[in-house]
Amino acid sequence: MATFQEKLTNAANKNNSLLCVGLDPDKALMPQIDVATFTTKIIDATSDLVCCYKPNLAFFEALGNEGLDALTKVVALAHAKGIPVIGDSKREDIGNSSRFYASRLFDMLGLDAVTVNPYMGSDSVGPFLEYKDKGVLVLCRTSNPGAADFQEQTVLVKGTKMPLFELVARTTVKWNRNGNIGLVAGATDPKAIGEIRKICQDMPILIPGVGAQAGDLETSIRFGVDSLGGGLMLNSSRQTIYASKGNDFAEASRKVAVDLRDKINAARLPALKK
Amino acid sequence: MATFQEKLTNAANKNNSLLCVGLDPDKALMPQIDVATFTTKIIDATSDLVCCYKPNLAFFEALGNEGLDALTKVVALAHAKGIPVIGDSKREDIGNSSRFYASRLFDMLGLDAVTVNPYMGSDSVGPFLEYKDKGVLVLCRTSNPGAADFQEQTVLVKGTKMPLFELVARTTVKWNRNGNIGLVAGATDPKAIGEIRKICQDMPILIPGVGAQAGDLETSIRFGVDSLGGGLMLNSSRQTIYASKGNDFAEASRKVAVDLRDKINAARLPALKK
Repeated sequence: MATFQEKLTNAANKNNSLLCVGLDPDKALMPQIDVATFTTKIIDATSDLVCCYKPNLAFFEALGNEGLDALTKVVALAHAKGIPVIGDSKREDIGNSSRFYASRLFDMLGLDAVTVNPYMGSDSVGPFLEYKDKGVLVLCRTSNPGAADFQEQTVLVKGTKMPLFELVARTTVKWNRNGNIGLVAGATDPKAIGEIRKICQDMPILIPGVGAQAGDLETSIRFGVDSLGGGLMLNSSRQTIYASKGNDFAEASRKVAVDLRDKINAARLPALKK
Repeated sequence: MATFQEKLTNAANKNNSLLCVGLDPDKALMPQIDVATFTTKIIDATSDLVCCYKPNLAFFEALGNEGLDALTKVVALAHAKGIPVIGDSKREDIGNSSRFYASRLFDMLGLDAVTVNPYMGSDSVGPFLEYKDKGVLVLCRTSNPGAADFQEQTVLVKGTKMPLFELVARTTVKWNRNGNIGLVAGATDPKAIGEIRKICQDMPILIPGVGAQAGDLETSIRFGVDSLGGGLMLNSSRQTIYASKGNDFAEASRKVAVDLRDKINAARLPALKK
């Protein structure tokens, strides 16, 4: 069976795209239709433009059974289109409990990758890493203002000063025995993305915050691409899926996705020529 | 409506207990009955011995609908017995998304408190804190081996060295405008509990790892009690709920809970006399 990394590379190559569309269904922003219809129509309209989808479980779980039903349909449809699905789940626990989260997210929901928070350390991330064909995207330098509270604090490691997020990146390199780790680094701090790329070499990096959160797309790509000019998943959620609140929401999301894919590819060009 | 803190104090006073029973239903360890029956029978057998229950959502969610049904029954029964329920959920996101987790956990599931991971900072924890009558227990120094990876790293804050978990504790004091924050600090490091108590004054501290994880119960209590000799929730999960795999599992869990409650109270005595 293909690994997450293989599925991601296949989709990125086939669609010539590093765009990840984030699926965050919020009834206050959506057209007045059910969530499964909303999210699957967006997939139908964009599946030739993306390298992956990223449903955020916060939004689906807040809808109870309707949300769970929609998430199941999102995963099935994306897979039918050949696109891997990252569950933006951000949950982990001590090792004994974390394996239940891993089983839920990978075995039951069929997600190809998940996001995890590193604060609890190796044994909390370990049960996810044991799924060798799945991707584990570790939060490193997130795109929100609160990232400054801890992630940017200076840590002293054997006499060397570095920001905490850099220690996280360095630690994940040691954890990566199965070659299935990636990192999360927001477009709000492209310089951090450059530092992280140097440390993690060719690990995939999920970059949220290129849309509504107003991160710097071009610099993030320039600093973030791997040695082959790829290795990035540039996520846009709200900007793309809420492009219109009318009946034309799917076509409107397609237009934004085309535009983002093209902007991303234009910014990749210099890197691809290297 | 009573706040989490009030409910916790009421239950601790009524039952003269700082014991928290962790509900982690694992079919490999349980008697062969359904999860709702298992967990509610344990509540029936122990509700006069505890100050709170702590269902770990990893275990319930891994069981799909059966788990969700059981969790709903756990919350309802605990509330009928006057005992508050901590959802050990450990999930949060950027502010915009975190509010959906808060709504799911507090509004839909009716939990009285939840655990959250601090790595993403203030805006990720903020939406939980806005529920003034709910408790928000921030992971500080967890009980697992991986806690050493980041939580114990030395950070430099304005020229002062401290472990990261101490910076987390200091930061939560600043966040605590609504007086509804507590901290999580494992019994595996009682000295850390003492440091955290000094910093957070009378915040409640959830202490996992007193049972199967073999933390130091007595020292944790001595270093951890607040100025009134309380302010702790000492959690035992596996040791208590898997005391027997036979038909006597509920009575067996009661025996362990009585023993733990008494051991905890014996260790509190010196503090109460202060």
